Amino acid sequence: MAKKILIDCDPGIDDALALGLAHGSPELDVVGVTTVGGNVELEHTTDNALRLRDFYGMDAPVARGAGRPLVREPRTAGEVHGNSGLGGAVLPEPKSELSGQHAVDFIIDTLAASPGEISLTAVGPLTNIALALRKEPRITEWVKEFVIMGGSFTRGNTNPAAEFNIVADPEAAAVAFGAPWRTVMIGLDLTHQARASAEVRAGFADLGRLEAELLTPCLDFYGSHISYQEKGPAIHDACAVAYVIDPGLFESVPARVDVETQGRFTSGMTVTDFAAPADIHNAIVPTALNTEGFWNLVTDAYRNVAASLPA
Amino acid sequence: MAKKILIDCDPGIDDALALGLAHGSPELDVVGVTTVGGNVELEHTTDNALRLRDFYGMDAPVARGAGRPLVREPRTAGEVHGNSGLGGAVLPEPKSELSGQHAVDFIIDTLAASPGEISLTAVGPLTNIALALRKEPRITEWVKEFVIMGGSFTRGNTNPAAEFNIVADPEAAAVAFGAPWRTVMIGLDLTHQARASAEVRAGFADLGRLEAELLTPCLDFYGSHISYQEKGPAIHDACAVAYVIDPGLFESVPARVDVETQGRFTSGMTVTDFAAPADIHNAIVPTALNTEGFWNLVTDAYRNVAASLPA
Amino acid sequence: MAKKILIDCDPGIDDALALGLAHGSPELDVVGVTTVGGNVELEHTTDNALRLRDFYGMDAPVARGAGRPLVREPRTAGEVHGNSGLGGAVLPEPKSELSGQHAVDFIIDTLAASPGEISLTAVGPLTNIALALRKEPRITEWVKEFVIMGGSFTRGNTNPAAEFNIVADPEAAAVAFGAPWRTVMIGLDLTHQARASAEVRAGFADLGRLEAELLTPCLDFYGSHISYQEKGPAIHDACAVAYVIDPGLFESVPARVDVETQGRFTSGMTVTDFAAPADIHNAIVPTALNTEGFWNLVTDAYRNVAASLPA
Amino acid sequence: MAKKILIDCDPGIDDALALGLAHGSPELDVVGVTTVGGNVELEHTTDNALRLRDFYGMDAPVARGAGRPLVREPRTAGEVHGNSGLGGAVLPEPKSELSGQHAVDFIIDTLAASPGEISLTAVGPLTNIALALRKEPRITEWVKEFVIMGGSFTRGNTNPAAEFNIVADPEAAAVAFGAPWRTVMIGLDLTHQARASAEVRAGFADLGRLEAELLTPCLDFYGSHISYQEKGPAIHDACAVAYVIDPGLFESVPARVDVETQGRFTSGMTVTDFAAPADIHNAIVPTALNTEGFWNLVTDAYRNVAASLPA
Repeated sequence: MAKKILIDCDPGIDDALALGLAHGSPELDVVGVTTVGGNVELEHTTDNALRLRDFYGMDAPVARGAGRPLVREPRTAGEVHGNSGLGGAVLPEPKSELSGQHAVDFIIDTLAASPGEISLTAVGPLTNIALALRKEPRITEWVKEFVIMGGSFTRGNTNPAAEFNIVADPEAAAVAFGAPWRTVMIGLDLTHQARASAEVRAGFADLGRLEAELLTPCLDFYGSHISYQEKGPAIHDACAVAYVIDPGLFESVPARVDVETQGRFTSGMTVTDFAAPADIHNAIVPTALNTEGFWNLVTDAYRNVAASLPA
Repeated sequence: MAKKILIDCDPGIDDALALGLAHGSPELDVVGVTTVGGNVELEHTTDNALRLRDFYGMDAPVARGAGRPLVREPRTAGEVHGNSGLGGAVLPEPKSELSGQHAVDFIIDTLAASPGEISLTAVGPLTNIALALRKEPRITEWVKEFVIMGGSFTRGNTNPAAEFNIVADPEAAAVAFGAPWRTVMIGLDLTHQARASAEVRAGFADLGRLEAELLTPCLDFYGSHISYQEKGPAIHDACAVAYVIDPGLFESVPARVDVETQGRFTSGMTVTDFAAPADIHNAIVPTALNTEGFWNLVTDAYRNVAASLPA
Repeated sequence: MAKKILIDCDPGIDDALALGLAHGSPELDVVGVTTVGGNVELEHTTDNALRLRDFYGMDAPVARGAGRPLVREPRTAGEVHGNSGLGGAVLPEPKSELSGQHAVDFIIDTLAASPGEISLTAVGPLTNIALALRKEPRITEWVKEFVIMGGSFTRGNTNPAAEFNIVADPEAAAVAFGAPWRTVMIGLDLTHQARASAEVRAGFADLGRLEAELLTPCLDFYGSHISYQEKGPAIHDACAVAYVIDPGLFESVPARVDVETQGRFTSGMTVTDFAAPADIHNAIVPTALNTEGFWNLVTDAYRNVAASLPA
Repeated sequence: MAKKILIDCDPGIDDALALGLAHGSPELDVVGVTTVGGNVELEHTTDNALRLRDFYGMDAPVARGAGRPLVREPRTAGEVHGNSGLGGAVLPEPKSELSGQHAVDFIIDTLAASPGEISLTAVGPLTNIALALRKEPRITEWVKEFVIMGGSFTRGNTNPAAEFNIVADPEAAAVAFGAPWRTVMIGLDLTHQARASAEVRAGFADLGRLEAELLTPCLDFYGSHISYQEKGPAIHDACAVAYVIDPGLFESVPARVDVETQGRFTSGMTVTDFAAPADIHNAIVPTALNTEGFWNLVTDAYRNVAASLPA
């Protein structure tokens, strides 16, 4: 039986690739997609989620969430994802319609309806998650697991200390890590092991419309960002989905993670203490990736997606 | 026509007195009461709101809200309000039932249904308000005015810098003051002018059950707190309701108010700049109270309440 | 026998007036003047100290101190004190020469030489004091008392939360208040009671060159600052000297004072807790001034100064 | 001609090893040793510096400096260095006497006397350096270069974010990195490449008293600390001295380094931005060590020291 996954995201190039992985994986049943402002504005992340739903032929509802961080002013990363959020990919205007529910209510109600069954996977800023936790604390009891793409235990990407998803809403991240569940933190130290190298991309060559209309325009744009030119772009968000599919692909270490919200140069840093006593551990931190296994997983899923697209 | 007021509160002794003022005032139509954790835990503030609804004979629905602050750990002020939150008053178990809606949704839906008509009046920590603002930013367009009891422009009460309602959830207060509306900040500098002195309390002597079962047990307990012994207790929250009834009782000054969220000794301080340029004003700060007018308003309202109570 | 006073200052208009009070008071023996960057740059405060030494005919050596705050970037208040630091007063080029010692060493050595005898009085940013404390912690044992002009227990002047001398070097102030002595904090709440009103200034009319060359040009300039126009300028720094002369002119309250160094809007605030337990008291906070007694003290001292000036 | 080096330190095991390297290196002329509270209390670091001076037979004066951090409360690392600071080494009571000067004055005067000639090398908390900078800003013009052991560009050792020397006095570090010189930051990422492995230590076997009385008792104690058991202890401070001897052993990258002083979990972190624009670079950050060359340097120097010790 497929594992249920609810994906909170801000598409975003790697979000798009993560959604494709989730949709194409026979291991997963995507029960919903919620959107949040992040890589680009909420208007665009939501629009992109609907376009991707159409393109992939997904059934899961899309619910729009928070347009700005819990406390701070919004910031985006349009220079990495393009102004539309999908790099060079141009998908048709969405035919899908939004769920009538706000993402926060969608998350709460969906988890409540299937307690213990759903992997809540957040690959954007954690604003919706924090709002849901504050509105209905019992989601920590209802969720099967909580997996994020975000943070780092060494260096950041938005600045030397902080990764984008966390620095975009540090207070929301503090709420999420402070909740009584174990956050699986797929951070940059892990995702930088998941590079779409030339060799990896060669494996996408025969994927037809998926390759031509989405993968290549996305990866070409993403890969042009200066920090990625050498080894190919890191497909951050897909790692979180891969963890839900097969945590055995990851070496993971329990830890205490505190989110800095007070620093002048370090707000949004995920301060990760592997030496903390076990009774204050609040996170599981994957540190090493079985890269070959990961790309096999991704490529197989994309092959399924490609096969299901109309010609 | 009566002015519509939605009261977000954490009863709490002065909340109870504020609800009585609102209920008894012919100028006001209470369209709802929402609860938040604050003076005491959410469980108690909500229970108290229901008991007060029964006692006063109010029609307005009561909706339960957030049990803990937006980001921080909860703190209460049981030493001021008693463990139950109503000092020495013992009201019967509630017969009223809660609204099915969460306070955040109740606020959003109620404001949406009557745009431009409702005074949103928050006299506890601003958690529900912040959550509502993040879930539905348009409430700032729908509200008639936003009045709070909270803050100070000189000294605090929980600590030298900060007033309880703000320090209990500084980030929520920062969100509220940061929203595109003018917050009317009824702070301690104002409310300390509204003391239930012996003379004031003498005016309540003939109020029957209201006096015997609520006012006296509340005020005796509240007044026993060390900071109040000299001049009688300040009835903070009632001042915010009085402002909605008659802002002419207040001298008010526009200002820029920033909520400190980063300080070591000052988190929760409402830093109030009367000299700020007008284009960054975000608040209206009542600084002086027509005390006689205020107590007349309160006493008249309480007389109405007393008259309507069953013997 | 006269009380010995060592004055650390940043002249500055009110510093000039404070030096005159100290020099003219038969109760005081000024054993040294040290300078610090503050109201204006160190170059100017030092130059002004030398000019004032010449003008008043003081014997005490002048030692130059720190030109910038302990940790932060420098800030000045030239708009209040004029670019030269003495408002409209133009004193002759200094003939006096500086002490060969750095202010920090002068403070340490002077206190060491007369243990228990000297009132260390700081009326500028506390940089020199902090450096001296860190270089020679025993000065807290050698000093007779430590009196500052700085801080506030309600509102600031540089911004709503902080007074200039403290906000100009919050870390130095934190060091000073953290040292094992009782800081006498003469803050704005006190000094705003010492206004050079028209009536006060009338008493200076017959003071000859002192009036014509210093008092009037200083006070006219100082009094023109917007916040002073109503009641006359507050002669902040002179209050600290007056306290050394006669603490009986002040009502004083013990308190715990913590200096905020971490706030976004409140750095440099002196958070004053009058309700703190006695065992953590670190300050004595004068709260009320015998205004008439104060101005008598000042006027008498100025009369002495005026009498000693060459015609 | 030998390069002049002034070493500010807190011995401390690795400080002791660094002093030995400096003393034994024919490339260096140690012009002074200044002490600061750090690994252990100032009393012990100073005592140890004198004992090491005697043991090594050094000529350079030892001057005592600051016993506590610029602003914060002191913290030590006795668990790493032993209560005396030299692990298991027991050196005789010192016969050497202290310089009459405070370290701060010694640093200022020594640099002033040989402008452009002296490498100022600080391997403890930067308190003395900050005090010297504030007392005499011109030391940045007089110094040849400023090299520290401290900080990290990935993870800390005292906590996940910060290295001990910096977290022990973050404000002093902020002052040092803020001064108009280029700080050479030898941080943990570098020093963790300088492990006294079993193989390295085998090379010390024939060093007689140096080995028996100092190296072995120090390294045995140091190496027993949990974080070092696998690869041998990192000889942090010696790397800074080695850089002065031969910077060619290091690959170094210019960067902007800001010291976090405001964080809740990150105070004392050296936030290192390799991508900062060149005009705001304030540091040179060695990132890779020629390990073999380093140990050759150290072993040769120790051989010289051993040869000069009386039998």
